[in-house]
Amino acid sequence: MNPTPAGQPLRGLLATEPVVATSGVALFADALRDQAVAVTETQWQPTDERSRAAVATVMADARRSAANEKALARMIAAEAKLVDVVRAGDALDLQPGTFLHAGPPIEWERASGPLRGALIGAVLFEGLADTPEEAERRLAAGEFAWEPCHHRDAVGPMAGVISPSMWLYELRDDVHDHTSWCSLNEGLGKVLRYGAYGPEVIERLHWMTNVLGPLLRQSVRSTGPFDIRAILAQMLQMGDEGHNRNRAGSLMLLRELLPGLITADGSSSDIAEAVRFSGANEHFFLNLGMPACKLATMAAHGIPGSTIVTTMARNGTDFGIRVSGTGEQWFTGPANTPEGLFLGSYGPADANPDIGDSAITETGGIGGFAMAAAPAIVKFVGGDVPFALTATQTMYEITQGEHTTYQVPILGFRGTPTGIDVTKVVRTGILPQINTGMAGRVAGTGQVGAGLVTPPMECFTGAIAALAQGV
Amino acid sequence: MNPTPAGQPLRGLLATEPVVATSGVALFADALRDQAVAVTETQWQPTDERSRAAVATVMADARRSAANEKALARMIAAEAKLVDVVRAGDALDLQPGTFLHAGPPIEWERASGPLRGALIGAVLFEGLADTPEEAERRLAAGEFAWEPCHHRDAVGPMAGVISPSMWLYELRDDVHDHTSWCSLNEGLGKVLRYGAYGPEVIERLHWMTNVLGPLLRQSVRSTGPFDIRAILAQMLQMGDEGHNRNRAGSLMLLRELLPGLITADGSSSDIAEAVRFSGANEHFFLNLGMPACKLATMAAHGIPGSTIVTTMARNGTDFGIRVSGTGEQWFTGPANTPEGLFLGSYGPADANPDIGDSAITETGGIGGFAMAAAPAIVKFVGGDVPFALTATQTMYEITQGEHTTYQVPILGFRGTPTGIDVTKVVRTGILPQINTGMAGRVAGTGQVGAGLVTPPMECFTGAIAALAQGV
Repeated sequence: MNPTPAGQPLRGLLATEPVVATSGVALFADALRDQAVAVTETQWQPTDERSRAAVATVMADARRSAANEKALARMIAAEAKLVDVVRAGDALDLQPGTFLHAGPPIEWERASGPLRGALIGAVLFEGLADTPEEAERRLAAGEFAWEPCHHRDAVGPMAGVISPSMWLYELRDDVHDHTSWCSLNEGLGKVLRYGAYGPEVIERLHWMTNVLGPLLRQSVRSTGPFDIRAILAQMLQMGDEGHNRNRAGSLMLLRELLPGLITADGSSSDIAEAVRFSGANEHFFLNLGMPACKLATMAAHGIPGSTIVTTMARNGTDFGIRVSGTGEQWFTGPANTPEGLFLGSYGPADANPDIGDSAITETGGIGGFAMAAAPAIVKFVGGDVPFALTATQTMYEITQGEHTTYQVPILGFRGTPTGIDVTKVVRTGILPQINTGMAGRVAGTGQVGAGLVTPPMECFTGAIAALAQGV
Repeated sequence: MNPTPAGQPLRGLLATEPVVATSGVALFADALRDQAVAVTETQWQPTDERSRAAVATVMADARRSAANEKALARMIAAEAKLVDVVRAGDALDLQPGTFLHAGPPIEWERASGPLRGALIGAVLFEGLADTPEEAERRLAAGEFAWEPCHHRDAVGPMAGVISPSMWLYELRDDVHDHTSWCSLNEGLGKVLRYGAYGPEVIERLHWMTNVLGPLLRQSVRSTGPFDIRAILAQMLQMGDEGHNRNRAGSLMLLRELLPGLITADGSSSDIAEAVRFSGANEHFFLNLGMPACKLATMAAHGIPGSTIVTTMARNGTDFGIRVSGTGEQWFTGPANTPEGLFLGSYGPADANPDIGDSAITETGGIGGFAMAAAPAIVKFVGGDVPFALTATQTMYEITQGEHTTYQVPILGFRGTPTGIDVTKVVRTGILPQINTGMAGRVAGTGQVGAGLVTPPMECFTGAIAALAQGV
């Protein structure tokens, strides 16, 4: 063993300038800046009186403590086994002309560009229109129906559009007897989930429907079920956070699927292409991690008196949350626009507000909440390594407890902060940290970048008011 | 964005007890302990007078600074492309009855249990004896020949025994026109490289020779070359350090090899077994990372006046190093026994002293030197997360500089400490940190654990004396 510099963590402590964090009015921060002192201003502001009263009411609810403990325990106990690959029409009883989408419910008039683009693409893919113009016209005319994925226990990344002919991963939690579904990942760039609907997008969807889906089904049926929760636990030891970084997870999933793929009934060129397509996609795993987290949050849902958030989802216009103790009600606010890094020549003006069901990962205790496990992600979403560490550490202040399966090695294998508590969010003013992809604002664009975002506080003040009414 | 707790790193600073590190005589440490103060004693002791004089002579050598800069630059510039899979007999002109092994040269009488076991196994595998007893008798009688892998620009993990019929990975550095080789990984447990030679070991070697090697060759020839340095760079972003943790690297290598494996000319059951065998082995990549580091250190070797270490290798009895400025001379000392975690019911008494060429990874700036990138490794080799961080940070004190390709995310993407400088090791008393597997002391046992170890200081005092003579 080497000489142990036991005092190492303190080295350099006095070698750097002091940093000051301020909150509230800018007077103090400005005064410091005038003296050339580095200042970080936080966004915290006192909650309004009505919310303070609601928090007081909810925190006095005798049911709350036990209900939240139960919610966290159920969240942690939930299994996530990939048991099958199925057609959306069959599994979700989704009729032709009906679609699912990410986030809370929304009408066409208020739908964002990427959601409109994805719905247009899905209409074309299903053969319900011949041109994008026709698809758009018929969608606007109300000839088709759509509702949130979450209303069918499904989740979809970004626009999250699911149509009857698409294949879905089917995951099971036998402990709580729940099933969840998610679409197959299309890769990056110009893809339906980012609102693109060009010919190459539709052609890829047809290949996924005709070739990839049936091969994946054979593999899962012949060598599954696969324990997705175990892969998530490993990922956090391998620099992934499970939302915007899924590199290790995608490789581990590929390894699980391979033996069944190689020996599947299909042409060797189809199999080779399926393996190549899956191996080339570093977000291949995202569509498994999301339903795994959905199963965890489903297990925590519906507990009277619980203030734990069980859904965070965005449709590109509104951010919506649902809470364990308030049933199926959505609490919404205008979605923020992520800040981060852009692809190619895209810039902030090209970014659509926050979109997708993928914030279910943060709701389940990973993603932005596990950024400390994935410091390399800052090269993709922006920020720096200290920010990644701080993000996770800050989330402990608004969560019920620590996950026992999902651990962060660099924090001494501490469990990830899990179970967002509405009361803690409103009291502290700390909003959940979300890592996310950025879709182009204009329908048909595709992905423009990736970044960091938080929900609007309205979601949580709305929820606390409803919780107070229920006490 | 959330409120940013800018002062976070300082939190709790005054909440813990102070810790004191002492070195030299125990008087001060004892006095502190009497006052109930926690003390960490370091092992540093003043170097002997002759070594101090040698260091002074070497540091006054006008060639040294530029020579070491050149050594580091060449080490960093070295490529590592997997270009072929070849038979050892052909590639290394290795004749029947001759073998290569890890570490510096050694005769049978002084050879350790695992090295003897691996040589016995290789004799059986080559069909040169019918029983282990016959193999051992003929080896002891001097009927066969063996020399270090390093003498043929090859490397082998643990016992590192290579025999003519084995397949080797062939890696190229076109920048410096160098080639290096390494055997294929056999997996864990009872395997030849850990000194096991039972029927299952020999049978597996035959399968690797008849099935695995030819399939890997087809894959590399059809879809290679593969950039191993690029994979190593990625691994460090994914929680591997490239010596005892190769999980992400093994998965990435498998992904590279897959398209060529799936379409190889071979039975689908052989291909499926080759994929299964490779995918199940979390150290599959080690045998690529080692020759990649060998190519880096070969590029740095042979520079007059350079005090940079270009080989660290162990045969289970002796630890040997070679230095850029002192040609082919080995500087040896008795190998230490690793301290760490044990498999099953094995304990410290079962462990053989340090063995293997795998310390080439630390010589090349990864492995123990990159532990901060792989905090989860402490569950495998022992220690804790702060130790992993400290290990990397301490290695900056004995290295020439930082790697530009191999980076540690948690240290703000700082390059790994690269290019061990003999003068710095002797002056500071800080020995290189090595992560390693532990072989059973008794021939035939196999792996008993994994742990942490350092070279004996004699290697470096021997080298500094030779360097001083050369000034």
